Amino acid sequence: MKLYTAHAPNPLRVNAFIHEKGIDIPTVRVDIMAGETREAAHLARNPLGELPVLELDDGTHISESLAICRYLEALYPEPSLFGSTPKDAAIIEMWTRRMELLIMESAGNIGRHLIPIFADKYEQMPDYAETQKRALMKHWAWLNDDLSDGRTYIALDQYSVADITAMGALFVMGFMQMEIPDSLEHVKRWESAVRAKPVWEGPNGA
Amino acid sequence: MKLYTAHAPNPLRVNAFIHEKGIDIPTVRVDIMAGETREAAHLARNPLGELPVLELDDGTHISESLAICRYLEALYPEPSLFGSTPKDAAIIEMWTRRMELLIMESAGNIGRHLIPIFADKYEQMPDYAETQKRALMKHWAWLNDDLSDGRTYIALDQYSVADITAMGALFVMGFMQMEIPDSLEHVKRWESAVRAKPVWEGPNGA
Repeated sequence: MKLYTAHAPNPLRVNAFIHEKGIDIPTVRVDIMAGETREAAHLARNPLGELPVLELDDGTHISESLAICRYLEALYPEPSLFGSTPKDAAIIEMWTRRMELLIMESAGNIGRHLIPIFADKYEQMPDYAETQKRALMKHWAWLNDDLSDGRTYIALDQYSVADITAMGALFVMGFMQMEIPDSLEHVKRWESAVRAKPVWEGPNGA
Repeated sequence: MKLYTAHAPNPLRVNAFIHEKGIDIPTVRVDIMAGETREAAHLARNPLGELPVLELDDGTHISESLAICRYLEALYPEPSLFGSTPKDAAIIEMWTRRMELLIMESAGNIGRHLIPIFADKYEQMPDYAETQKRALMKHWAWLNDDLSDGRTYIALDQYSVADITAMGALFVMGFMQMEIPDSLEHVKRWESAVRAKPVWEGPNGA
């Protein structure tokens, strides 16, 4: 296997997953800012021109972070990051979807509508980005209420892809110079726990 | 088990999944337009006030369509709609994510920004909805190019959650009086195949 990756939010998610699994996959850095993701060589790996992409030994290319993570979970089941019983897996999936739709999507929209490199891919509306900043903060506050039961991690109080999905949003926020406010004490507790993960210190970290 | 559901895009996805599995789950209809999803009884099932929600026999509530579908896949593996090998599952997941992010998200944004009942949940921007109509059509055209190899179904040419995810967008488009243009002949072939599924004729169909 070979992982095409970069210093960006979705690659960070896969990196965090790989780190926690304790596995080692050869990586190839692709330079987004230099336009390498729009070159023919990369479009052959992923016609959407995005990262990360996992290349299997038979030449198959798997893109989309969660698809890559699920494939690795099947190969390396321990420690389980998707849940090891149908019920645990359903609860982790529910929270992963919530983090995706409420947190990561809002954060991603801020970047997509404000960062010049995305201008040819999206019809950028700075006013929409402002609504997404407010939506993101509203959703973190919602999560804060839910974490007020004292748990550290988002789903089942165990580190999972739900946390990793929300970590992608922390990466975006860092890039956009946004922070979780101190008033969201329960989210801050979660943030401290996930920021202690060594993935942030690696070459693709935040 | 008991499924709380409605006549809406995400419930349609779970219905399509259940239909294909050939399983029978007791359902409770919740009236979105009458505000029942914002009542305390429903918020206790899903604090986000959304549908569908699967109630397990032990009282656990699973929301988020894909989480419900994955739980049902674990209980009823055949026919597999998520892929039965790690590689097939990864390819189906990749396509499900693409359909989610390119097709269902754009379609959903059109509804969220134009339908009055969502005005208290989102900062509605009709101009943004217009950009999403264009984005949706651009993404269908992208899919059309990819389906030009002649396959009927989106991932591995077998009916899967990738197709079901895109079917959710067909539901939204029907509601918004939008259609797939005839010029997208390959998507039209796919549409004919999925519209032949009997789920569309049921009480929660489109």
